[in-house]
Amino acid sequence: MFCERTSEGLIHETSYWRVVLAFEQSYLGRCLVVLKRHCGDLAELRPEEWSDFAELVKKLESALRKAFGATMFNWTCLMNNAYQHDPPNPHVHWHFRPRYDHEVKFAGVVFRDPGFGHHYDRMRVQRVSEDVKRKIIEEIKQNLD
Amino acid sequence: MFCERTSEGLIHETSYWRVVLAFEQSYLGRCLVVLKRHCGDLAELRPEEWSDFAELVKKLESALRKAFGATMFNWTCLMNNAYQHDPPNPHVHWHFRPRYDHEVKFAGVVFRDPGFGHHYDRMRVQRVSEDVKRKIIEEIKQNLD
Repeated sequence: MFCERTSEGLIHETSYWRVVLAFEQSYLGRCLVVLKRHCGDLAELRPEEWSDFAELVKKLESALRKAFGATMFNWTCLMNNAYQHDPPNPHVHWHFRPRYDHEVKFAGVVFRDPGFGHHYDRMRVQRVSEDVKRKIIEEIKQNLD
Repeated sequence: MFCERTSEGLIHETSYWRVVLAFEQSYLGRCLVVLKRHCGDLAELRPEEWSDFAELVKKLESALRKAFGATMFNWTCLMNNAYQHDPPNPHVHWHFRPRYDHEVKFAGVVFRDPGFGHHYDRMRVQRVSEDVKRKIIEEIKQNLD
């Protein structure tokens, strides 16, 4: 479960949320924003968790613009997979995909967003080495205010 | 642009957001939640717009559970299409897709969610008549607190 995960890939932490780098980087800087408390429905978020999230959206978008020149951002809260289990045990988390109207070369790797201006493509997977992941995390961290 | 649209398909309105029924109903009760003010980035939402949205999430999920027995919900804020234009003119809106672990018959139409437990399927489109749309809107309205 998300709430039990260690700090693997940790980029940033606020009072209520944890930002971790996604396992694949088809959208450079793709992250998960995970609620620290175990809660399974957006409707049950507390006011302070929403306002903390709002601040985080601002911070994270700004950081990704500065770090890699991201053009805009896709935010999704889905939690479908949790419903493959009986009983389902969803945990609130957001998928954050920076989108790019240009190619970016970072840490020797070329990152592209060929479907810019269109829905994200879940079939496109870009795995990167642990070293490149560390560099992406470091670059985002340095650009967080 | 969203902010200039009339109240076609209007289900509900708060101080800052407008809820309209989506043009297709592959996920029964699929809606758009559109910011009334013209603003192109989630990062620029004001605190009162976030807190109003948080209340709306609660209200809308509850209404869809009562109206059609929705099991869980997918929320996305994408705005990709706006970037097909130069210059882009995005307008903050959320896609709200109720998901169902069961078939629902409403107003003589059968609605299915064959991919429940998985990412929503954008290729699956279910158009319904204006009359059925009116009935869906009415049913949701009656279940909003």
